[in-house]
Amino acid sequence: KTHIDCITSRQLIKLPGFIDTHVHVREPGATHKEDFSSCTAAALAGGVTLICAMPNTNPPIIDEQSLQLVQKLSKENARCDYALYVGASSHNSSVIPELASQTAGLKMYLNETFTTLKLDDLTVWSKHLVNWPKKYPLCVHAEGQTTAAILLLANLHNRPIHICHVARKEEIQVIKAAKEKGMKVTCEVCPHHLFLSTNDVAHLGPTKSQVRPVLVSPEDQKALWDNLHVIDCFATDHAPHTLEEKLSTNAPPGYPGLETILPLLLNAVHEGRLTIDDIVTKFYRNPKRIFNLPEQWNTYVEVDMDEEWVIPDAMPYSKSKWTPFAGKKVRGSVHRVVLRGEVAYVEGQVLVQPGYGQNVRNWKTKKTALQPGDLKTSSALD
Amino acid sequence: KTHIDCITSRQLIKLPGFIDTHVHVREPGATHKEDFSSCTAAALAGGVTLICAMPNTNPPIIDEQSLQLVQKLSKENARCDYALYVGASSHNSSVIPELASQTAGLKMYLNETFTTLKLDDLTVWSKHLVNWPKKYPLCVHAEGQTTAAILLLANLHNRPIHICHVARKEEIQVIKAAKEKGMKVTCEVCPHHLFLSTNDVAHLGPTKSQVRPVLVSPEDQKALWDNLHVIDCFATDHAPHTLEEKLSTNAPPGYPGLETILPLLLNAVHEGRLTIDDIVTKFYRNPKRIFNLPEQWNTYVEVDMDEEWVIPDAMPYSKSKWTPFAGKKVRGSVHRVVLRGEVAYVEGQVLVQPGYGQNVRNWKTKKTALQPGDLKTSSALD
Ligand SMILES: [Zn+2]
Ligand SMILES: [Zn+2]
Ligand SMILES: [Zn+2]
Ligand SMILES: [Zn+2]
Ligand SMILES: [Zn+2]
Ligand SMILES: [Zn+2]
Ligand SMILES: [Zn+2]
Ligand SMILES: [Zn+2]
Repeated sequence: KTHIDCITSRQLIKLPGFIDTHVHVREPGATHKEDFSSCTAAALAGGVTLICAMPNTNPPIIDEQSLQLVQKLSKENARCDYALYVGASSHNSSVIPELASQTAGLKMYLNETFTTLKLDDLTVWSKHLVNWPKKYPLCVHAEGQTTAAILLLANLHNRPIHICHVARKEEIQVIKAAKEKGMKVTCEVCPHHLFLSTNDVAHLGPTKSQVRPVLVSPEDQKALWDNLHVIDCFATDHAPHTLEEKLSTNAPPGYPGLETILPLLLNAVHEGRLTIDDIVTKFYRNPKRIFNLPEQWNTYVEVDMDEEWVIPDAMPYSKSKWTPFAGKKVRGSVHRVVLRGEVAYVEGQVLVQPGYGQNVRNWKTKKTALQPGDLKTSSALD
Repeated sequence: KTHIDCITSRQLIKLPGFIDTHVHVREPGATHKEDFSSCTAAALAGGVTLICAMPNTNPPIIDEQSLQLVQKLSKENARCDYALYVGASSHNSSVIPELASQTAGLKMYLNETFTTLKLDDLTVWSKHLVNWPKKYPLCVHAEGQTTAAILLLANLHNRPIHICHVARKEEIQVIKAAKEKGMKVTCEVCPHHLFLSTNDVAHLGPTKSQVRPVLVSPEDQKALWDNLHVIDCFATDHAPHTLEEKLSTNAPPGYPGLETILPLLLNAVHEGRLTIDDIVTKFYRNPKRIFNLPEQWNTYVEVDMDEEWVIPDAMPYSKSKWTPFAGKKVRGSVHRVVLRGEVAYVEGQVLVQPGYGQNVRNWKTKKTALQPGDLKTSSALD
């Protein structure tokens, strides 16, 4: 493939392929909402070249058989690279550790949410914390006081944990204090908690606005921004549901996010709230290190820092066909994405086919690192 | 007062006056259930010479004014000695610490229960943990994962806490692990969790059996007994409601317990499940030390180790007029109670009047300790 660049007057910046460690692909079980093909197209359109797929599918990924099913589906249909989580259930703590090396990590759902995998007994938490190998990631959905509870258990068992979608002041503060005490904890924050708040519930409406953790108060949101140094990762928690579902009574919680995260972050750079280095650190370096993910050879994203646009009612690739950020004016867009030497996305078009994506946990040897200078910014790349 | 002993052939044991750090007196606000006069009569009949009164009254004891109210009521009406808790609210963390020296300690309600004092935000928990003076007790109602959450916060703020009414395997195990890690935590267990279980719900019925924490499974109960060394204190959580209330739909949770705790514990000694020293340690020495309570001079309890009796439908002194232990055959009874040199109770009769009891936090000087030998067992005392 060749690409003759149409842009010469804009500031293009070359950045690494981003890593989203929190994505709900919805396949198997809810492919009307999303599937590996559409989800990874959305990822590439968003500058994301590697996703970690959550296990709360139907069937849930909680044993060897279900893991093999999703391994097959992803191999056939993914366009970008990926790793696959397994989920903790009340009864699989003794058998899943042997699957660890094939997975993105273990996901534990400790609060009621859109899943059948909730675990509410500390003895079950402890079994997973003890049995899951320390060198593989262990991620938790743990809101409010549950954040404190799992931090204690992890500390008692002396193992690192990663807290998903931190949203509230009380959560970021307790993680900060735990880090200061030397506890082994990392965390991620989602764009919808950084850029939306309870002030947006009215225009989104009572059903579309549903998400877990819920949209937080401006005070909570300010605490996230005030503690940016405590936030290890940005992750979308891409959780697509159809517009029809989101408009129904008892709408399921969740937002699509893959196609909007990078523009929103770039816009925050223009607003002076983030630096490019913050984005590279929290959306590439830290996820790569925390999740022990391999280098993707000759993989990078060119972003257009100057394009101003309004987020439409729906972004093109996710099947969800709506976005909570519709109407937001942003500056910054994804121009081109190169994945393992191939132009995977350029100017609105996803060019790689289902099946091009690889499960990075199958990469036995270390891939060559990015070329020197790949992470430097430059203008008018071609 | 003189007392010519009627018993010569029985094994009487002289024990210290017991300390129950978890009592709901119900005054002010619900004196049809219990009041200081009836509650402290029940205490004395149960071998308890010092109670700590919980603050979830009406009004709740959460500020100087409400504390003064209950100080006046207790001074006029208590028959045994006492100390008074204050309750943590969402807004009193900066003002109640100055009351600390007048109180039994601070009580924090962290789960939904029979109170208006629930606190569910970690930032509020933290304010109380930081502001309440470390040398005064801080007690928490914290079930399940909340036990782990408050243990983390207390550890982050490096302050001791006392966990009320531990009932479940997951709770005693996490406290055990925290103690092994050197965290400053103590805990109490109630007779109804040691001696009743979900197996008793059928005969108690769905409304009478209501209590928080709920009656636990035999597996949970076994974990309490297996971890007796982790349990610092026995406490009743004496929470009287009338029989009529307990038979109504949406019956309030709670059991009376002051008049039955010591007979149940003595019976467990006969069964070989406890020793007399366990009772003295966990129902006198440890509460005294943990709550920094003063010695009650010339105060002791004579128990009859051999009396066999069946717990009746209601014990005589609590206004509640029912007991969850009705029908249980026990061996061991309270024979006589001496409180600060006066015979306060003997053979079924409470002999001290309302107003005899004193607020031990008003005792400025250290009282003389018990006489040597007071804690030794002996037979046929007179
Ligand atoms: Zn170009
Ligand atoms: Zn171009
Ligand atoms: Zn979640
Ligand atoms: Zn999620
Ligand atoms: Zn006698
Ligand atoms: Zn007698
Ligand atoms: Zn309680
Ligand atoms: Zn209580």
